[in-house]
Amino acid sequence: MTRHLEREIERLKRALLAVSAIVEENVQKSVKAIKERDPRLAREVIESDLEIDQMEVDIEEECQKALALHQPVASDLRFIIAVLKINNDLERIGDLAVNIAERAVYLSTQERVDIPFDFAGLAQKAQAMLRDSLDALVNLDADLAHEVLAADDEVDDINREMYRLVQEGIRSHPEHVESLILLLSVSRQLERVADHATNIAEDVIYLVRGDIVRHRAEEFRDVAEQ
Amino acid sequence: MTRHLEREIERLKRALLAVSAIVEENVQKSVKAIKERDPRLAREVIESDLEIDQMEVDIEEECQKALALHQPVASDLRFIIAVLKINNDLERIGDLAVNIAERAVYLSTQERVDIPFDFAGLAQKAQAMLRDSLDALVNLDADLAHEVLAADDEVDDINREMYRLVQEGIRSHPEHVESLILLLSVSRQLERVADHATNIAEDVIYLVRGDIVRHRAEEFRDVAEQ
Repeated sequence: MTRHLEREIERLKRALLAVSAIVEENVQKSVKAIKERDPRLAREVIESDLEIDQMEVDIEEECQKALALHQPVASDLRFIIAVLKINNDLERIGDLAVNIAERAVYLSTQERVDIPFDFAGLAQKAQAMLRDSLDALVNLDADLAHEVLAADDEVDDINREMYRLVQEGIRSHPEHVESLILLLSVSRQLERVADHATNIAEDVIYLVRGDIVRHRAEEFRDVAEQ
Repeated sequence: MTRHLEREIERLKRALLAVSAIVEENVQKSVKAIKERDPRLAREVIESDLEIDQMEVDIEEECQKALALHQPVASDLRFIIAVLKINNDLERIGDLAVNIAERAVYLSTQERVDIPFDFAGLAQKAQAMLRDSLDALVNLDADLAHEVLAADDEVDDINREMYRLVQEGIRSHPEHVESLILLLSVSRQLERVADHATNIAEDVIYLVRGDIVRHRAEEFRDVAEQ
């Protein structure tokens, strides 16, 4: 690998970490905005998403330049392809945080509805998966990436439980149906954050081992899970 | 562009169209499975998703080879980057069809719940967007891609209406809460299909015009829309 390409790859790693730090913060803030009924915090998330969008465009152009100028092959080429894909995943996680924030704005205008569900815990799990998947990329650590895949099953379990709680909530308080469906939707957005982290982890494993873990024959999942 | 690269790019186009044909068929079948309460059809969708997954892996490897062997620059390079991203979108649309099919399997075991909602119409709109976005890619037709973006607003409107219908349904028949939430979820999966078609169309516009339409400042969307 030439010195220039080496530097370019380091730069791409740093750029992805920078986006991922903002994305992670936005996920955290959006969930806090739900919990604390804080529309101001939610609007911060919505506004700062523009920055994430711009960073995505910049990283894609950086990748394009790296491909055109350095014409990498083998593992360097695979790394840049992985960056292109992961960049996309990060941007979409940013959009999910915006979705949550939009629900927070609306919910803050409605009567408070409590369900015994630990959003913050679910959000932390999803964030930890995101952080680990990026660490796995930066350190080319396939074992850590495998841990992310395992954690996704836990997130699915938590989400299934949420599904049950919302149904119970609606049965006992049908007047709260609107807010309860929005809360269910927040939980689904967090599940999708975890799915994107899983995609990132799968790309890392493919990159490191050349395995195609992306599409293990998936179990015939219980329908209630989503 | 060398003859080899030209042929390679034609091959990539054909490969994307082949995946997209199966993906489109799966979306259609999964919605039919909901409507006709046909778990057999739903299982066909779930099984054939393995084929889509394999095609995604093959196309990504084909792109990697094209980059390594032909070291394209400028518009050819941008085209191959677009193929990498669109390939990913198509595979995820395939997953959404699986999600719908899984709900169809479950709903076929439950009492039939009718809501006056035109799933087939929504599915057709989403499929048309997908087809147009791919045609736009193959013909490098930015105008057609812009039509896809416009159609996405209609899909959002339809989905918002679904949201209202489900809430009404739950209020008048709280005993059907489970099935109604699953039907709402089917409608959301179709909305996500349309979102992926929109992503593809945005990539095409970027490819053709060099514009960054991906991230126009998005309107502060009505929360009820999702």
